[in-house]
Amino acid sequence: MPLLIKNANEIVTMQSSVNGPRTGKAMSELSIIKNGSILVEDDCIIAIGPLAEIQQQFAEQVAQADIVDATGKVVMPGLVDCHTHLVHGGTREHELNMRLSGATYMEIMNAGGGIHYTTTKTREASFDELYEKTVKILNQFLTYGVTTIEAKSGYGLDWETEKKQLEVVKKLQETHEIDLVSTFMGAHAVPSEYKGREDDFVDVVINEMLPKVAELGLAEFNDVFCEKGVFTPEQSRKILLAGKEYGLTPKIHADEIEPYEGAELAAELGAISAEHLLVASDEGIEAMAKAGTIAVLLPGTAFFLRAPFARGRLMIDRGVPVAISTDFNPGSSPTISLPFIQNLACMNMGMTMEEVLVATTINAAYAINRGEKVGSLEVGKKADILLLNVPNYKQLQYFYGMNHTDTVIKAGEVVVKEGVFIR
Amino acid sequence: MPLLIKNANEIVTMQSSVNGPRTGKAMSELSIIKNGSILVEDDCIIAIGPLAEIQQQFAEQVAQADIVDATGKVVMPGLVDCHTHLVHGGTREHELNMRLSGATYMEIMNAGGGIHYTTTKTREASFDELYEKTVKILNQFLTYGVTTIEAKSGYGLDWETEKKQLEVVKKLQETHEIDLVSTFMGAHAVPSEYKGREDDFVDVVINEMLPKVAELGLAEFNDVFCEKGVFTPEQSRKILLAGKEYGLTPKIHADEIEPYEGAELAAELGAISAEHLLVASDEGIEAMAKAGTIAVLLPGTAFFLRAPFARGRLMIDRGVPVAISTDFNPGSSPTISLPFIQNLACMNMGMTMEEVLVATTINAAYAINRGEKVGSLEVGKKADILLLNVPNYKQLQYFYGMNHTDTVIKAGEVVVKEGVFIR
Repeated sequence: MPLLIKNANEIVTMQSSVNGPRTGKAMSELSIIKNGSILVEDDCIIAIGPLAEIQQQFAEQVAQADIVDATGKVVMPGLVDCHTHLVHGGTREHELNMRLSGATYMEIMNAGGGIHYTTTKTREASFDELYEKTVKILNQFLTYGVTTIEAKSGYGLDWETEKKQLEVVKKLQETHEIDLVSTFMGAHAVPSEYKGREDDFVDVVINEMLPKVAELGLAEFNDVFCEKGVFTPEQSRKILLAGKEYGLTPKIHADEIEPYEGAELAAELGAISAEHLLVASDEGIEAMAKAGTIAVLLPGTAFFLRAPFARGRLMIDRGVPVAISTDFNPGSSPTISLPFIQNLACMNMGMTMEEVLVATTINAAYAINRGEKVGSLEVGKKADILLLNVPNYKQLQYFYGMNHTDTVIKAGEVVVKEGVFIR
Repeated sequence: MPLLIKNANEIVTMQSSVNGPRTGKAMSELSIIKNGSILVEDDCIIAIGPLAEIQQQFAEQVAQADIVDATGKVVMPGLVDCHTHLVHGGTREHELNMRLSGATYMEIMNAGGGIHYTTTKTREASFDELYEKTVKILNQFLTYGVTTIEAKSGYGLDWETEKKQLEVVKKLQETHEIDLVSTFMGAHAVPSEYKGREDDFVDVVINEMLPKVAELGLAEFNDVFCEKGVFTPEQSRKILLAGKEYGLTPKIHADEIEPYEGAELAAELGAISAEHLLVASDEGIEAMAKAGTIAVLLPGTAFFLRAPFARGRLMIDRGVPVAISTDFNPGSSPTISLPFIQNLACMNMGMTMEEVLVATTINAAYAINRGEKVGSLEVGKKADILLLNVPNYKQLQYFYGMNHTDTVIKAGEVVVKEGVFIR
């Protein structure tokens, strides 16, 4: 049955004359239609505009359509969360008071907490345990308006567990409403059994894991944590170049805690994105702008680690395409609220109300190579559509710290109604 | 019918040997009962503890009781929002990009925006318009777990409108589930018609408004915005002392934007609370600790104005009783999410996971003279009770930026179920 979304106060389409990730002024182009309607057939948008025009052109479909009334509401594309560590065992709330008392992320990690704790829990968890846990998380993501998610492995750090994580994602791609995009991140940390033999672990990633990931078709992207005390730029380059040979597009965790020329490396390698960038250098930002590397900024992580925020305002002003994401993970950003991450990007990075919407939809989609399919409301694109309980898009950032998601339509089906997951 | 809340994973009671607002180490005393149950009769808690004991002691009531299953959940007292500007006309999302581009709150106000805009909108709105708008806001507050709210007037700045605001609160006290506590704040700003004649307006507040507020029984508290460019400490003292004569307990908006000895004044006058305190001096903090003045901190306002945060950690360490609140208002803090304000108090003021819970329940209750009735789960207290979708209280701050409220029981009645307001 077709679906007709009727009489939205504002439809924020994100359409633009720019093809590809938006930069500069195009990051403020929301292309709003007032009092608009959208007609969906199968899982696609087939018309968008004034109701009368749609009725005239598609009389038959409109006559049969289920109606969703959007009176008084904002309608916009489903949110794209382009950087998460979705599948993992355990939670780490026990570390929070330590950090509130001043312990740093790296101190906790070096004391056996942090990633190592999660790695142990993820190794211990069965496939089914991880799957069931992640289903619940994905259902909750939908209630915050997120319809597409990138998921990185990297809490296994041995092949068996990395494979388990990636296979959970693969199964969820088949079973869950949310679209998942898979990234291999075997080089997320050096496992404790390789301490002092970091290069040996790099060899394992390159020679044992990457070929199998490619052979089994378990990921599209290859990511590495390039950070002092984790992987050097040289090791990171090797891992990302090796991934490229297997058809995996490079991504990179860059310049998160200490400047390490990660942004520069991303530009050099033609990575699709560099992520975090809290302390990226001016030179790195220039290089990214030139190469068109998407900056995936994660202000929740800075908030939760009580660290300085990435220079989002400056990056946009210098012409870098910016996306923002939750970084959902059990250590440095345990939130699934991408709407709240938008608020942070405004208040703590000086991005405008328009830029944060572009950064969590169309630019986030391009950061995971889905810009042609989702991230904007256009004829032919997937019908991933949100109805929000506000009369204009500005109130999304104005009424901060709140979830305004009322209805979520995923691939043409209503999956969230009055804020509640209904399937 | 009695109500039995059964088998909570944790009941956070907030009970303490300390009588009165908690200070120092008592701000971390959550008094948790594992696997506990609560029996409610009429609107009060009549038993709390292990289910077997309650069944033995209250067999008859348990047999008749409606059951609320709290398996796997945290149960805690309803939140108390002890500082809001609840009733007002209009919204001000149009100011947000100006502020994101660097304009200050005072610059916007001096250009005729800010409080003046809201004053105009509040004067224009009818009683019914304000009432209906506020009902919707209160229903939403319940879904965030807030069961008691303080409401300040102060967007009229003429008697007619101040009275209208206060009477909306009075009617809501009779009609709405949420308990409202009323504060008169005629001295919230100098209305534009009194520009340059500030002392004349102070006389109007003292000689015309205060007597009528008292005569009509429209408020319990009297508040003033003591701030450079608004009311001086001397004017503030006069207004608060005059209010005292009419039986109104002093509160004070102190040291929000520039240090102005507001904290010191609160201590000197025996105010129940000093609020904001972003730039309170060391001396002011010492004076408050000595006098027992409650610090009502509003980290959302600092977040939204992109200002430095109040020194919450230091205040607790110096022995000041600390409460935190949303400051819900259309200019500097348009949020009703007290759970998110807790997150901010952790991340941006260094308060612990335990302290923020005390600060939004029992200490907030004492800041509006309700500490004997609400703010903790104890036999004889009002049955304002939350069920939260987390297995332990630490996850409330850990899974940040999210609303974990599942069920809200207000005065013994279920008003929110699965996060949805149901009355």
